[in-house]
Amino acid sequence: MKNDAISFMTYSFAIDKAMRAARLKQTPVCFWFTGLSGAGKSTIANAFEQALWHRGLQTCIVDADAVRQGLNADLGYGREARSENVRRIGHVARLMVDAGLIVIACSISPYSQDRQMVRSLFNEGEFVEVFVSTSLQTCAARDPKGLYARARQGHLRQLSGWDDPYEKPAAADIELRTEHVSVDEAVLQLMAAYDALHDEQV
Amino acid sequence: MKNDAISFMTYSFAIDKAMRAARLKQTPVCFWFTGLSGAGKSTIANAFEQALWHRGLQTCIVDADAVRQGLNADLGYGREARSENVRRIGHVARLMVDAGLIVIACSISPYSQDRQMVRSLFNEGEFVEVFVSTSLQTCAARDPKGLYARARQGHLRQLSGWDDPYEKPAAADIELRTEHVSVDEAVLQLMAAYDALHDEQV
Repeated sequence: MKNDAISFMTYSFAIDKAMRAARLKQTPVCFWFTGLSGAGKSTIANAFEQALWHRGLQTCIVDADAVRQGLNADLGYGREARSENVRRIGHVARLMVDAGLIVIACSISPYSQDRQMVRSLFNEGEFVEVFVSTSLQTCAARDPKGLYARARQGHLRQLSGWDDPYEKPAAADIELRTEHVSVDEAVLQLMAAYDALHDEQV
Repeated sequence: MKNDAISFMTYSFAIDKAMRAARLKQTPVCFWFTGLSGAGKSTIANAFEQALWHRGLQTCIVDADAVRQGLNADLGYGREARSENVRRIGHVARLMVDAGLIVIACSISPYSQDRQMVRSLFNEGEFVEVFVSTSLQTCAARDPKGLYARARQGHLRQLSGWDDPYEKPAAADIELRTEHVSVDEAVLQLMAAYDALHDEQV
Protein backbone atom coordinates (compact mmCIF):
# COMPACT_ATOMS: atom_id res chain seq x y z
CA MET A 1 0.00 0.00 0.00
CA LYS A 2 3.02 2.20 -0.39
CA ASN A 3 1.67 5.35 -2.07
CA ASP A 4 -1.72 3.62 -1.87
CA ALA A 5 -0.67 1.37 -4.76
CA ILE A 6 -2.36 -1.75 -3.42
CA SER A 7 -1.04 -4.73 -5.34
CA PHE A 8 -4.28 -6.22 -6.61
CA MET A 9 -2.23 -7.86 -9.35
CA THR A 10 -0.63 -10.29 -6.96
CA TYR A 11 -3.59 -11.06 -4.70
CA SER A 12 -6.57 -11.22 -6.95
CA PHE A 13 -8.60 -14.11 -5.52
CA ALA A 14 -10.17 -15.09 -2.25
CA ILE A 15 -9.85 -18.57 -0.78
CA ASP A 16 -13.33 -19.93 -0.44
CA LYS A 17 -14.94 -22.95 1.15
CA ALA A 18 -14.92 -24.96 -2.07
CA MET A 19 -11.17 -24.49 -2.46
CA ARG A 20 -10.59 -25.53 1.14
CA ALA A 21 -12.85 -28.57 0.76
CA ALA A 22 -11.10 -29.63 -2.43
CA ARG A 23 -7.67 -29.38 -0.87
CA LEU A 24 -8.74 -31.25 2.28
CA LYS A 25 -10.61 -33.78 0.14
CA GLN A 26 -13.66 -33.59 2.35
CA THR A 27 -17.19 -32.21 2.55
CA PRO A 28 -17.51 -29.38 5.10
CA VAL A 29 -20.59 -30.05 7.19
CA CYS A 30 -22.01 -29.58 10.67
CA PHE A 31 -23.32 -32.58 12.59
CA TRP A 32 -25.50 -31.07 15.29
CA PHE A 33 -25.98 -33.40 18.27
CA THR A 34 -29.04 -32.62 20.39
CA GLY A 35 -30.24 -34.62 23.39
CA LEU A 36 -30.51 -34.65 27.16
CA SER A 37 -27.55 -34.41 29.48
CA GLY A 38 -26.20 -37.95 29.75
CA ALA A 39 -27.74 -39.03 26.45
CA GLY A 40 -24.30 -39.83 25.03
CA LYS A 41 -23.63 -36.79 22.82
CA SER A 42 -20.00 -36.30 23.81
CA THR A 43 -19.19 -40.01 23.86
CA ILE A 44 -20.50 -40.55 20.35
CA ALA A 45 -19.02 -37.27 19.10
CA ASN A 46 -15.56 -38.29 20.27
CA ALA A 47 -15.87 -41.73 18.72
CA PHE A 48 -17.13 -40.26 15.44
CA GLU A 49 -14.32 -37.73 15.38
CA GLN A 50 -11.76 -40.47 15.86
CA ALA A 51 -13.29 -42.49 13.03
CA LEU A 52 -13.12 -39.43 10.77
CA TRP A 53 -9.55 -38.80 11.90
CA HIS A 54 -8.53 -42.31 10.89
CA ARG A 55 -9.84 -41.52 7.43
CA GLY A 56 -7.54 -38.51 7.27
CA LEU A 57 -10.29 -35.92 7.62
CA GLN A 58 -10.06 -32.56 9.39
CA THR A 59 -12.61 -32.20 12.15
CA CYS A 60 -13.56 -30.10 15.10
CA ILE A 61 -15.83 -30.70 18.09
CA VAL A 62 -17.69 -27.68 19.44
CA ASP A 63 -18.96 -28.78 22.82
CA ALA A 64 -21.47 -26.62 24.64
CA ASP A 65 -19.96 -27.48 28.04
CA ALA A 66 -16.53 -26.33 26.88
CA VAL A 67 -17.91 -23.23 25.18
CA ARG A 68 -19.65 -22.26 28.42
CA GLN A 69 -16.18 -21.94 29.94
CA GLY A 70 -15.22 -19.36 27.32
CA LEU A 71 -17.35 -17.73 24.64
CA ASN A 72 -20.59 -18.36 26.52
CA ALA A 73 -19.31 -17.91 30.06
CA ASP A 74 -21.61 -14.90 30.39
CA LEU A 75 -24.79 -16.90 29.83
CA GLY A 76 -27.12 -18.54 32.32
CA TYR A 77 -29.76 -21.23 31.85
CA GLY A 78 -32.98 -19.26 31.40
CA ARG A 79 -35.01 -19.46 28.20
CA GLU A 80 -33.31 -16.52 26.50
CA ALA A 81 -29.83 -17.46 27.65
CA ARG A 82 -30.28 -20.99 26.33
CA SER A 83 -31.36 -19.62 22.96
CA GLU A 84 -28.39 -17.28 22.87
CA ASN A 85 -26.11 -20.18 23.83
CA VAL A 86 -27.40 -22.21 20.89
CA ARG A 87 -27.31 -19.24 18.51
CA ARG A 88 -23.65 -18.56 19.25
CA ILE A 89 -22.64 -22.21 18.96
CA GLY A 90 -24.46 -22.29 15.63
CA HIS A 91 -22.53 -19.31 14.32
CA VAL A 92 -19.22 -20.73 15.52
CA ALA A 93 -20.01 -24.02 13.79
CA ARG A 94 -20.90 -22.11 10.64
CA LEU A 95 -17.57 -20.27 10.66
CA MET A 96 -15.76 -23.58 11.08
CA VAL A 97 -17.66 -25.16 8.21
CA ASP A 98 -16.70 -22.14 6.12
CA ALA A 99 -13.10 -22.89 7.10
CA GLY A 100 -13.56 -26.31 5.47
CA LEU A 101 -13.91 -28.45 8.58
CA ILE A 102 -16.26 -31.28 9.49
CA VAL A 103 -17.82 -29.91 12.66
CA ILE A 104 -19.49 -31.91 15.40
CA ALA A 105 -21.49 -29.61 17.66
CA CYS A 106 -22.77 -31.02 20.96
CA SER A 107 -25.46 -29.02 22.71
CA ILE A 108 -28.58 -30.08 24.59
CA SER A 109 -30.30 -27.37 22.48
CA PRO A 110 -33.68 -28.15 24.02
CA TYR A 111 -35.86 -25.87 21.88
CA SER A 112 -36.98 -26.77 18.35
CA GLN A 113 -37.13 -23.14 17.31
CA ASP A 114 -33.48 -22.60 18.23
CA ARG A 115 -32.38 -25.70 16.34
CA GLN A 116 -34.31 -24.54 13.29
CA MET A 117 -32.62 -21.15 13.51
CA VAL A 118 -29.24 -22.87 13.56
CA ARG A 119 -30.15 -25.00 10.56
CA SER A 120 -31.06 -21.82 8.67
CA LEU A 121 -27.45 -20.61 9.02
CA PHE A 122 -26.23 -23.39 6.75
CA ASN A 123 -26.61 -24.22 3.09
CA GLU A 124 -28.64 -27.23 2.06
CA GLY A 125 -26.62 -30.37 2.72
CA GLU A 126 -24.29 -28.70 5.21
CA PHE A 127 -26.29 -29.40 8.35
CA VAL A 128 -27.22 -32.78 9.79
CA GLU A 129 -29.41 -32.83 12.88
CA VAL A 130 -28.55 -35.82 15.06
CA PHE A 131 -30.96 -36.66 17.84
CA VAL A 132 -29.09 -38.58 20.51
CA SER A 133 -32.19 -40.24 21.83
CA THR A 134 -32.02 -41.69 25.31
CA SER A 135 -34.79 -41.92 27.89
CA LEU A 136 -34.69 -39.57 30.85
CA GLN A 137 -34.63 -42.64 33.08
CA THR A 138 -31.44 -43.93 31.47
CA CYS A 139 -29.79 -40.48 31.40
CA ALA A 140 -30.56 -40.04 35.10
CA ALA A 141 -29.14 -43.49 35.84
CA ARG A 142 -25.92 -42.81 33.88
CA ASP A 143 -25.68 -39.27 35.29
CA PRO A 144 -22.02 -38.79 34.22
CA LYS A 145 -21.86 -35.26 35.65
CA GLY A 146 -24.00 -35.87 38.71
CA LEU A 147 -26.54 -33.31 37.50
CA TYR A 148 -29.61 -35.48 38.01
CA ALA A 149 -28.51 -36.34 41.53
CA ARG A 150 -28.13 -32.65 42.30
CA ALA A 151 -31.52 -31.92 40.74
CA ARG A 152 -33.13 -34.69 42.80
CA GLN A 153 -31.63 -33.21 45.94
CA GLY A 154 -32.93 -29.78 45.00
CA HIS A 155 -29.46 -28.31 44.45
CA LEU A 156 -29.85 -27.80 40.70
CA ARG A 157 -32.69 -26.25 38.76
CA GLN A 158 -33.50 -25.77 35.09
CA LEU A 159 -32.17 -29.15 34.01
CA SER A 160 -33.52 -29.91 30.54
CA GLY A 161 -35.93 -32.83 30.54
CA TRP A 162 -36.12 -32.79 34.33
CA ASP A 163 -37.70 -29.50 35.41
CA ASP A 164 -37.05 -27.57 32.17
CA PRO A 165 -38.43 -28.40 28.72
CA TYR A 166 -36.72 -30.61 26.17
CA GLU A 167 -38.54 -30.54 22.85
CA LYS A 168 -37.71 -33.73 20.99
CA PRO A 169 -36.82 -33.28 17.31
CA ALA A 170 -39.81 -34.21 15.18
CA ALA A 171 -37.76 -34.99 12.11
CA ALA A 172 -34.07 -35.29 12.89
CA ASP A 173 -31.85 -36.40 10.03
CA ILE A 174 -30.47 -39.15 12.23
CA GLU A 175 -31.80 -40.62 15.45
CA LEU A 176 -29.39 -42.58 17.62
CA ARG A 177 -31.27 -44.65 20.17
CA THR A 178 -28.38 -45.30 22.51
CA GLU A 179 -30.28 -47.83 24.58
CA HIS A 180 -30.46 -50.01 21.48
CA VAL A 181 -27.34 -49.26 19.41
CA SER A 182 -23.68 -49.41 20.42
CA VAL A 183 -21.22 -46.56 19.97
CA ASP A 184 -19.71 -48.48 17.06
CA GLU A 185 -23.10 -48.81 15.38
CA ALA A 186 -23.81 -45.12 15.94
CA VAL A 187 -20.49 -44.19 14.34
CA LEU A 188 -21.22 -46.39 11.31
CA GLN A 189 -24.60 -44.70 10.90
CA LEU A 190 -23.00 -41.24 11.10
CA MET A 191 -20.24 -42.19 8.69
CA ALA A 192 -22.80 -43.47 6.19
CA ALA A 193 -24.61 -40.12 6.44
CA TYR A 194 -21.33 -38.30 5.82
CA ASP A 195 -20.58 -40.43 2.77
CA ALA A 196 -24.08 -39.89 1.44
CA LEU A 197 -23.55 -36.12 1.60
CA HIS A 198 -20.44 -36.46 -0.44
CA ASP A 199 -22.12 -38.68 -3.04
CA GLU A 200 -24.92 -36.14 -3.44
CA GLN A 201 -22.47 -33.38 -4.20
CA VAL A 202 -20.38 -35.35 -6.67
CA MET B 1 -23.83 -47.83 24.74
CA LYS B 2 -26.04 -50.87 24.40
CA ASN B 3 -26.47 -52.09 27.99
CA ASP B 4 -24.31 -49.15 28.96
CA ALA B 5 -21.28 -51.04 27.67
CA ILE B 6 -19.48 -48.02 26.26
CA SER B 7 -16.65 -49.24 24.06
CA PHE B 8 -13.74 -47.45 25.63
CA MET B 9 -11.48 -50.06 24.07
CA THR B 10 -12.02 -48.75 20.60
CA TYR B 11 -12.08 -45.03 21.31
CA SER B 12 -9.50 -44.46 23.96
CA PHE B 13 -7.82 -41.22 22.91
CA ALA B 14 -8.81 -37.66 22.17
CA ILE B 15 -7.53 -35.78 19.15
CA ASP B 16 -5.69 -32.75 20.42
CA LYS B 17 -4.18 -29.64 18.93
CA ALA B 18 -0.70 -31.14 18.70
CA MET B 19 -1.99 -34.09 16.68
CA ARG B 20 -3.85 -31.76 14.33
CA ALA B 21 -0.82 -29.51 13.95
CA ALA B 22 1.43 -32.47 13.20
CA ARG B 23 -0.90 -33.82 10.56
CA LEU B 24 -1.37 -30.42 8.93
CA LYS B 25 2.38 -29.76 9.21
CA GLN B 26 1.80 -26.29 10.60
CA THR B 27 1.89 -24.22 13.77
CA PRO B 28 -1.59 -23.22 14.98
CA VAL B 29 -1.51 -19.53 15.84
CA CYS B 30 -3.66 -16.42 15.86
CA PHE B 31 -2.45 -13.30 14.07
CA TRP B 32 -4.54 -10.52 15.56
CA PHE B 33 -4.77 -7.47 13.29
CA THR B 34 -5.70 -4.24 15.07
CA GLY B 35 -5.94 -0.81 13.49
CA LEU B 36 -8.31 1.91 12.32
CA SER B 37 -10.98 1.37 9.70
CA GLY B 38 -9.22 1.77 6.36
CA ALA B 39 -5.81 0.95 7.83
CA GLY B 40 -5.47 -2.05 5.52
CA LYS B 41 -6.26 -4.95 7.88
CA SER B 42 -8.45 -6.91 5.46
CA THR B 43 -6.24 -6.25 2.45
CA ILE B 44 -3.13 -7.51 4.18
CA ALA B 45 -5.01 -10.38 5.84
CA ASN B 46 -6.24 -11.60 2.46
CA ALA B 47 -2.79 -11.33 0.92
CA PHE B 48 -1.20 -13.12 3.87
CA GLU B 49 -3.79 -15.88 3.73
CA GLN B 50 -3.10 -16.41 0.04
CA ALA B 51 0.62 -16.61 0.68
CA LEU B 52 0.00 -19.21 3.41
CA TRP B 53 -2.35 -21.07 1.08
CA HIS B 54 0.35 -21.29 -1.57
CA ARG B 55 2.54 -22.95 1.03
CA GLY B 56 -0.16 -25.58 1.55
CA LEU B 57 -1.22 -24.32 4.97
CA GLN B 58 -4.74 -24.38 6.45
CA THR B 59 -5.95 -20.95 7.41
CA CYS B 60 -9.01 -19.01 8.39
CA ILE B 61 -9.83 -15.31 8.45
CA VAL B 62 -12.14 -14.12 11.21
CA ASP B 63 -13.21 -10.66 10.12
CA ALA B 64 -15.07 -8.45 12.58
CA ASP B 65 -17.21 -6.94 9.82
CA ALA B 66 -18.36 -10.40 8.72
CA VAL B 67 -18.87 -11.57 12.30
CA ARG B 68 -21.09 -8.57 12.96
CA GLN B 69 -23.45 -9.99 10.33
CA GLY B 70 -23.78 -13.20 12.33
CA LEU B 71 -22.42 -14.08 15.76
CA ASN B 72 -22.15 -10.44 16.81
CA ALA B 73 -25.22 -9.09 15.03
CA ASP B 74 -26.73 -8.28 18.44
CA LEU B 75 -23.94 -5.86 19.40
CA GLY B 76 -23.70 -2.10 18.98
CA TYR B 77 -20.70 0.22 19.10
CA GLY B 78 -20.67 1.48 22.69
CA ARG B 79 -17.78 0.79 25.02
CA GLU B 80 -19.20 -2.44 26.45
CA ALA B 81 -20.46 -3.74 23.12
CA ARG B 82 -17.06 -3.19 21.54
CA SER B 83 -15.41 -5.11 24.35
CA GLU B 84 -17.91 -7.95 23.97
CA ASN B 85 -17.34 -7.91 20.21
CA VAL B 86 -13.61 -8.35 20.74
CA ARG B 87 -14.07 -10.94 23.50
CA ARG B 88 -16.21 -13.14 21.27
CA ILE B 89 -13.89 -12.86 18.28
CA GLY B 90 -11.04 -13.79 20.60
CA HIS B 91 -12.83 -16.94 21.76
CA VAL B 92 -13.74 -17.92 18.21
CA ALA B 93 -10.12 -17.49 17.16
CA ARG B 94 -9.03 -19.58 20.13
CA LEU B 95 -11.40 -22.41 19.14
CA MET B 96 -10.03 -22.29 15.59
CA VAL B 97 -6.43 -22.41 16.80
CA ASP B 98 -7.42 -25.42 18.91
CA ALA B 99 -8.74 -26.94 15.68
CA GLY B 100 -5.21 -26.63 14.28
CA LEU B 101 -5.70 -23.63 12.01
CA ILE B 102 -3.62 -20.55 11.35
CA VAL B 103 -6.12 -17.82 12.19
CA ILE B 104 -6.02 -14.24 11.00
CA ALA B 105 -8.43 -12.12 13.05
CA CYS B 106 -9.22 -8.61 11.81
CA SER B 107 -10.84 -6.27 14.29
CA ILE B 108 -10.33 -2.59 15.00
CA SER B 109 -10.20 -3.69 18.67
CA PRO B 110 -9.60 -0.13 19.83
CA TYR B 111 -9.00 -0.80 23.54
CA SER B 112 -5.69 -2.10 24.91
CA GLN B 113 -7.41 -3.85 27.79
CA ASP B 114 -9.59 -5.89 25.42
CA ARG B 115 -6.61 -6.89 23.30
CA GLN B 116 -4.74 -7.97 26.41
CA MET B 117 -7.72 -10.06 27.47
CA VAL B 118 -7.71 -11.77 24.09
CA ARG B 119 -3.99 -12.46 24.33
CA SER B 120 -4.59 -14.12 27.69
CA LEU B 121 -6.83 -16.70 25.99
CA PHE B 122 -3.86 -18.16 24.15
CA ASN B 123 -0.76 -20.06 25.11
CA GLU B 124 2.62 -18.40 24.82
CA GLY B 125 3.63 -18.33 21.15
CA GLU B 126 0.11 -18.79 19.85
CA PHE B 127 -0.84 -15.13 19.63
CA VAL B 128 0.81 -12.47 17.48
CA GLU B 129 -0.48 -8.92 17.80
CA VAL B 130 -0.18 -7.10 14.49
CA PHE B 131 -0.65 -3.34 14.55
CA VAL B 132 -1.73 -2.23 11.09
CA SER B 133 -0.47 1.27 11.57
CA THR B 134 -1.85 3.94 9.27
CA SER B 135 -2.48 7.59 10.05
CA LEU B 136 -6.06 8.75 10.50
CA GLN B 137 -5.48 11.17 7.64
CA THR B 138 -4.59 8.37 5.24
CA CYS B 139 -7.42 6.11 6.47
CA ALA B 140 -9.92 8.93 5.96
CA ALA B 141 -8.53 9.57 2.48
CA ARG B 142 -8.76 5.90 1.49
CA ASP B 143 -12.16 5.53 3.20
CA PRO B 144 -12.98 2.20 1.47
CA LYS B 145 -16.37 1.91 3.19
CA GLY B 146 -17.27 5.60 3.13
CA LEU B 147 -17.36 5.67 6.94
CA TYR B 148 -15.21 8.78 7.34
CA ALA B 149 -17.33 10.67 4.80
CA ARG B 150 -20.44 9.75 6.75
CA ALA B 151 -18.78 10.74 10.03
CA ARG B 152 -17.73 14.07 8.54
CA GLN B 153 -21.32 14.69 7.43
CA GLY B 154 -22.60 13.84 10.90
CA HIS B 155 -24.36 10.65 9.77
CA LEU B 156 -22.11 8.27 11.69
CA ARG B 157 -20.94 8.40 15.28
CA GLN B 158 -18.56 6.36 17.41
CA LEU B 159 -16.00 5.82 14.66
CA SER B 160 -12.75 4.68 16.26
CA GLY B 161 -9.98 7.23 15.90
CA TRP B 162 -12.45 9.89 14.75
CA ASP B 163 -14.87 10.58 17.59
CA ASP B 164 -14.24 7.39 19.58
CA PRO B 165 -10.95 6.28 21.15
CA TYR B 166 -8.35 4.14 19.45
CA GLU B 167 -5.61 3.14 21.86
CA LYS B 168 -2.50 2.36 19.84
CA PRO B 169 -0.67 -0.82 20.84
CA ALA B 170 2.35 0.08 22.95
CA ALA B 171 4.26 -3.10 22.16
CA ALA B 172 2.71 -4.97 19.24
CA ASP B 173 4.61 -8.02 18.06
CA ILE B 174 4.56 -6.60 14.53
CA GLU B 175 3.87 -3.08 13.31
CA LEU B 176 2.97 -2.66 9.66
CA ARG B 177 3.28 0.98 8.64
CA THR B 178 1.23 0.78 5.48
CA GLU B 179 2.20 4.26 4.33
CA HIS B 180 5.77 3.01 4.08
CA VAL B 181 5.62 -0.70 3.22
CA SER B 182 3.85 -2.46 0.38
CA VAL B 183 1.42 -5.33 0.80
CA ASP B 184 4.13 -7.67 -0.45
CA GLU B 185 6.57 -6.39 2.14
CA ALA B 186 3.95 -6.73 4.87
CA VAL B 187 3.29 -10.33 3.86
CA LEU B 188 7.00 -11.14 3.93
CA GLN B 189 7.24 -9.68 7.42
CA LEU B 190 4.26 -11.74 8.62
CA MET B 191 5.58 -14.89 7.00
CA ALA B 192 8.94 -14.41 8.71
CA ALA B 193 7.10 -14.09 12.03
CA TYR B 194 5.21 -17.31 11.31
CA ASP B 195 8.41 -19.16 10.46
CA ALA B 196 10.07 -17.84 13.60
CA LEU B 197 7.24 -19.29 15.70
CA HIS B 198 7.81 -22.63 14.13
CA ASP B 199 11.55 -22.51 14.67
CA GLU B 200 11.02 -21.69 18.35
CA GLN B 201 8.85 -24.74 18.83
CA VAL B 202 11.11 -27.17 16.98
